Amino acid sequence: MASSLHLSQAFLARAVYLNSDRTASSLSSTSTLSFPTLKPSSLSRRRTATTTIRATAVETLDKTAEVSLVEKSVNTIRFLAIDAVEKANSGHPGLPMGCAPMGHILYDEIMRYNPKNPSWFNRDRFVLSAGHGCMLQYALLHLAGYDSVKEEDLKQFRQWGSKTPGHPENFETYGIEVTTGLIIIICLISLCYCEPFFVSSVMNFNYPCIFCCLGPLGQGIANGVGLALAEKHLAARFNKPDSEIVDHYTYVILGDGCQMEGISNEACSLAGHWGLGKLIAFYDDNHISIDGDTEIAFTENVDQRFEALGWHVIWVKNGNTGYDEIRAAIKEAKAVTDKPTLIKVTTTIGFGSPNKANSYSVHGAALGAKEVDATRQNLGWPYEPFHVPEDVKKHWSRHTPEGAALEAEWNAKFAEYEKKYKEEAAELKAIINRELPADWEKALPTYTPETPADATRNLSQANLNALAKVLPGLIGGSADLASSNMTLLKQFGDFQKATPEERNVRFGVREHAMGAICNGIALHSPGFIPYCATFFVFTDYMRAAIRISALCEAGVIYVMTHDSIGLGEDGPTHQPIEHLASFRAMPNVLMLRPADGNETAGSYRVAVLNPKRPSILALSRQKLPNLPGTSIEGVEKGGYTISDNSSGNKPDVILIGTGSELEIAAAAADDLRKEGKTVRVVSFVSWELFDDQSDEYKESVLPAAVTARVSIEAGSTFGWHKIVGSKGKTIGIDRFGASAPAGKIYKEYGITKEAVISAAKEVS
Amino acid sequence: MASSLHLSQAFLARAVYLNSDRTASSLSSTSTLSFPTLKPSSLSRRRTATTTIRATAVETLDKTAEVSLVEKSVNTIRFLAIDAVEKANSGHPGLPMGCAPMGHILYDEIMRYNPKNPSWFNRDRFVLSAGHGCMLQYALLHLAGYDSVKEEDLKQFRQWGSKTPGHPENFETYGIEVTTGLIIIICLISLCYCEPFFVSSVMNFNYPCIFCCLGPLGQGIANGVGLALAEKHLAARFNKPDSEIVDHYTYVILGDGCQMEGISNEACSLAGHWGLGKLIAFYDDNHISIDGDTEIAFTENVDQRFEALGWHVIWVKNGNTGYDEIRAAIKEAKAVTDKPTLIKVTTTIGFGSPNKANSYSVHGAALGAKEVDATRQNLGWPYEPFHVPEDVKKHWSRHTPEGAALEAEWNAKFAEYEKKYKEEAAELKAIINRELPADWEKALPTYTPETPADATRNLSQANLNALAKVLPGLIGGSADLASSNMTLLKQFGDFQKATPEERNVRFGVREHAMGAICNGIALHSPGFIPYCATFFVFTDYMRAAIRISALCEAGVIYVMTHDSIGLGEDGPTHQPIEHLASFRAMPNVLMLRPADGNETAGSYRVAVLNPKRPSILALSRQKLPNLPGTSIEGVEKGGYTISDNSSGNKPDVILIGTGSELEIAAAAADDLRKEGKTVRVVSFVSWELFDDQSDEYKESVLPAAVTARVSIEAGSTFGWHKIVGSKGKTIGIDRFGASAPAGKIYKEYGITKEAVISAAKEVS
Repeated sequence: MASSLHLSQAFLARAVYLNSDRTASSLSSTSTLSFPTLKPSSLSRRRTATTTIRATAVETLDKTAEVSLVEKSVNTIRFLAIDAVEKANSGHPGLPMGCAPMGHILYDEIMRYNPKNPSWFNRDRFVLSAGHGCMLQYALLHLAGYDSVKEEDLKQFRQWGSKTPGHPENFETYGIEVTTGLIIIICLISLCYCEPFFVSSVMNFNYPCIFCCLGPLGQGIANGVGLALAEKHLAARFNKPDSEIVDHYTYVILGDGCQMEGISNEACSLAGHWGLGKLIAFYDDNHISIDGDTEIAFTENVDQRFEALGWHVIWVKNGNTGYDEIRAAIKEAKAVTDKPTLIKVTTTIGFGSPNKANSYSVHGAALGAKEVDATRQNLGWPYEPFHVPEDVKKHWSRHTPEGAALEAEWNAKFAEYEKKYKEEAAELKAIINRELPADWEKALPTYTPETPADATRNLSQANLNALAKVLPGLIGGSADLASSNMTLLKQFGDFQKATPEERNVRFGVREHAMGAICNGIALHSPGFIPYCATFFVFTDYMRAAIRISALCEAGVIYVMTHDSIGLGEDGPTHQPIEHLASFRAMPNVLMLRPADGNETAGSYRVAVLNPKRPSILALSRQKLPNLPGTSIEGVEKGGYTISDNSSGNKPDVILIGTGSELEIAAAAADDLRKEGKTVRVVSFVSWELFDDQSDEYKESVLPAAVTARVSIEAGSTFGWHKIVGSKGKTIGIDRFGASAPAGKIYKEYGITKEAVISAAKEVS
Repeated sequence: MASSLHLSQAFLARAVYLNSDRTASSLSSTSTLSFPTLKPSSLSRRRTATTTIRATAVETLDKTAEVSLVEKSVNTIRFLAIDAVEKANSGHPGLPMGCAPMGHILYDEIMRYNPKNPSWFNRDRFVLSAGHGCMLQYALLHLAGYDSVKEEDLKQFRQWGSKTPGHPENFETYGIEVTTGLIIIICLISLCYCEPFFVSSVMNFNYPCIFCCLGPLGQGIANGVGLALAEKHLAARFNKPDSEIVDHYTYVILGDGCQMEGISNEACSLAGHWGLGKLIAFYDDNHISIDGDTEIAFTENVDQRFEALGWHVIWVKNGNTGYDEIRAAIKEAKAVTDKPTLIKVTTTIGFGSPNKANSYSVHGAALGAKEVDATRQNLGWPYEPFHVPEDVKKHWSRHTPEGAALEAEWNAKFAEYEKKYKEEAAELKAIINRELPADWEKALPTYTPETPADATRNLSQANLNALAKVLPGLIGGSADLASSNMTLLKQFGDFQKATPEERNVRFGVREHAMGAICNGIALHSPGFIPYCATFFVFTDYMRAAIRISALCEAGVIYVMTHDSIGLGEDGPTHQPIEHLASFRAMPNVLMLRPADGNETAGSYRVAVLNPKRPSILALSRQKLPNLPGTSIEGVEKGGYTISDNSSGNKPDVILIGTGSELEIAAAAADDLRKEGKTVRVVSFVSWELFDDQSDEYKESVLPAAVTARVSIEAGSTFGWHKIVGSKGKTIGIDRFGASAPAGKIYKEYGITKEAVISAAKEVS
């Protein structure tokens, strides 16, 4: 037995070496390894300490072979991934096999986290953007002591009801939900239990497990940019010369697929522009994608592109076994504080597999029993499937006490901070815990029919500015349309490299990254309420990010103006038609289309009160009158009566409108009433909220007996038949828009009072 | 009067100088200009000829000022834009004012086109990716002699029913339709009349005006990549040592906004990878976007990024007046044949406006009467609005005879080519004119219920391979999922830099660019039938491009596999839910979800026969049986009965399914019939096609009297109430998917025969 020091001794030794600088000395030339680590007592100025030990080989069956503990840990990660994919006969073993070394170094040597409280605020964030390799992270979380990934969970990889991944039925159980599917971005907390944590008297985690997200390729790095933005913003706002209370890194692993997606270039251009120095991305440069060698479609110079984007770039040529190279790269990356860093790590996909390494066949399929055996042979791995050698287990076990210590120390530090900086501490706590001030809703403006007509995009700006005063976590901006979307917070400046404490974010013309960055901000801390804006039609550019908001329960507010043909001259490329329908069909989205001032305020109220659902506000370019009968409370019901001259819940006809067409419905009702009809006008501002109401309430608004119904909306009629029924009529637009002044288009397209009156007479 | 040579003389002079090399000599040091031009009689090896003349100033009111004709032409372009935007009080004058010099040089000196036949096959293509500046192109087309943009059209800019832009009601009139909205990409033909052209006995333009497109930012450059790909492909396939029958350039102007969009990086990475040497992009580097200076969000090094992407990069520092710099850059770009070229042209947005130039205020709003006057003063422009000085008019008038000569020469050349290369000529003609072989449909495979079950993605591949043999314009590929989407054409190799004659395109993980590139291919020549593929859920990444396919009538075939929870373990990020509904709501899309072999063949038949509508095929990962009663003819009706044991068009219940769930509906029907019920099973493969049928036909499939209807589809129920009516039942999925083997998810989500039977009993 070559090892001269047991793990318990090693752990002890680390304590001794704390505060010492990292040393390069080694006690043995063949089996030494180093553990750079963190000093729990000096978190505000991280210094690494090192000790060197020889590997213990208590479980090495072949006693003649000496395996370093790092290599053993790395191989443990590899085989947990191999075994889980094999058992599921489904999954992606290649990336975990290639990325195990960087994964090991990050989770074992570099990152600060508390496995028993994955939602600890000041933890380092980790994003696996190339998330088809999610078994890498499952294995790491398992080793690090997260309760969410026990051995039995690994064995249930990709099975119904499992936690690795689980399934999304239980939205009550945060974290579990996010383990479903092909996980692309997960963070430290993403696999946790997520019972509410009451971490300390300081931190009341009402929203315990907010960090979780799935996303198709490229979105992970954009989420990472959002996380790093959030850290930079909070640090600038709350850190004091004597207390860096916000201070963590964001690490991302991304692959060739992420690099090819346009969203990653958008997000990385912004990261460079903002100088996000604490964003460190590992590019797993393995030259293999599903269709084979990346040579067939991806021959650009990635290093040079990132330099052009303002990143610091480092190349680790041997990512398979070059542990010290990886460590040195991270050290260098941390030293560059004014730029994000890309560490290109050249790896071999499926490293260790003698016949499948470096081929696409190891990318997305189980190795097969024969090749698993060959790989075991090749890497000298004599263990049963899913086995974690005792020495590896013991080695990783220190993260539980160390993580607790890290958090405890931070809590103590926060208590100190709170004493000195009461106001700031309260604000930060509100962001950490999503504590809304008791009277925040009073900030929302209210309107009467006498209030002059205004565009709902302008009313939206009034709401945003009012809310920014009472919601410390409100932050956001537009994709180069701030002055059209009306999203500027007047009391704040621009979030920029030199002014990160400000709250107006300038995303440039990068809708997709904007959405994904906002997801990252939302998931950084529950009290963040990110909003982002563009023209409603350009949700097409960011739809994949909006879907991820909905799936991972990120309560982003999408401020989408110019919501119909009502925008006029810009024409059909800018006029949404099918967009309302397309989002009403998307699960867990709140699609809101307010008609006036009160409904706009109500929409913001709903958005703020639904942190687990993204809200999309469709807002008008054109002026709309404030209608009698609209209300904030009505919006919360989704659909409600704004006027009715009938009795006994039996009007002759029900007119249903949303947004800018509610005015038309109301005007048509006036005329019909003059002719003696009893008419109810219903605002249908959010279908989802209406769906959530009781049957009694629904019957009170849309009584089954009244089949004479007419809907009017300047968009696709698709879906409206559910509301108006077989005997009702829908007025809408089922073709593309046109370029002309808005009033002209409305008339030509038949979105008129006259059309409503005529339809009402037909059905009643 | 300083000019010593009249334009008519100048035009004559050019003929004399044809075949001579470009000379730098000038006859006058103050007002000389050069006209590099093309020799109509030597198109196969372009050589530029030059003559120098002095400007005529017949209409210069201030006779003391000498204005060169080029400058005068450039200012004409500027003021046409200024005046049109001013009259409309809406639009973007800034870009035309800054880009007028490069626009002038391209249209007047460089490009080969025939204004009287904008659809001439071998014309140079031009794409205005930064298309909010569409008045630039309107002005150029007007000067160049296109009949589509007369003076009165310029005066109707952005008005209802105008041609600049018009409106999309008249889908019959190609070109007119594409002028609507905020035009982002238009080509030479995009504003033309588009009556069918019968250009010569050789060219029968059944699809006369195919080149047109609109698109939000970033898509234009991707379309340009598609155009250049198409040229490179056709040139490699059809050119002969003695005849370069395919030989044109693709020019693009893109702005800062295009550069920020991720899609442009995706597309340009591919352009570099493919070495598209005849793609020349002008980057209008004006430092202004809507929100102000690009410094606020866009500080990357664009030159370096493009070098990283494999482009040749040239910087023209003075784009405002540096005509010779621009000319030299184009010359250099043409000399680089193995790489696309980016010419960064630094311009001043709103050049000439004394108070608004170089500010965002000139980007998207009219200058205002006062500033228009000041600009007239500043640029020495004494003319009335919309006036084109006679000398400018006269100068541009030569493009009509020259364009006709260019085309006539090409036609003669083609006639020669056809004599020598009969087969190739026939194939090329088929691509130019979309001539489908008489018996092409016979290539489609047919199936019987005895044919073994198969996944529709596999059946799709059989169709693609069968069609590739008979449709010379079929070309396409996948976004790194060829082996999952099953899209490889087995008889062809990969389209790559060195093998551009092949037809399998490898797009890498770049869905958005893939869609927009296919739009470009489709619009290059009507006989191109581009297809592209990814997982159905990732249509979210390319939705903006699909919408543009629909809007500009590009008949791209979207091969979208893994179309439901039926894909199993990959989980909710990969499982489409709302996607069918979202495309059914999108105008002009054919959303097809075939259930088996015959329906897959029928879907391809529909796709090929609808060149003006994009078709989206939603295909299964899992095997599906070939069902009795399905047919190619049935698919063409959109919805049709596959089995019925009732008589008199009065079944007890109608079961309606699509795709993989049609099998479930059929099985439920079998059981219900055993219990004595009369049951009709309807396949609802395409809602849009069903909508197009006569009322009689619809009644024959879904009789109004039968309200007992049940739909089943493994996707959102959104929209289905229109089909099943108020008394019907919908079986579907209105939440996100889950990760498990497919059969398990179907069961847990209630997408089962039992659920159909139970619902059928409830309603009947």
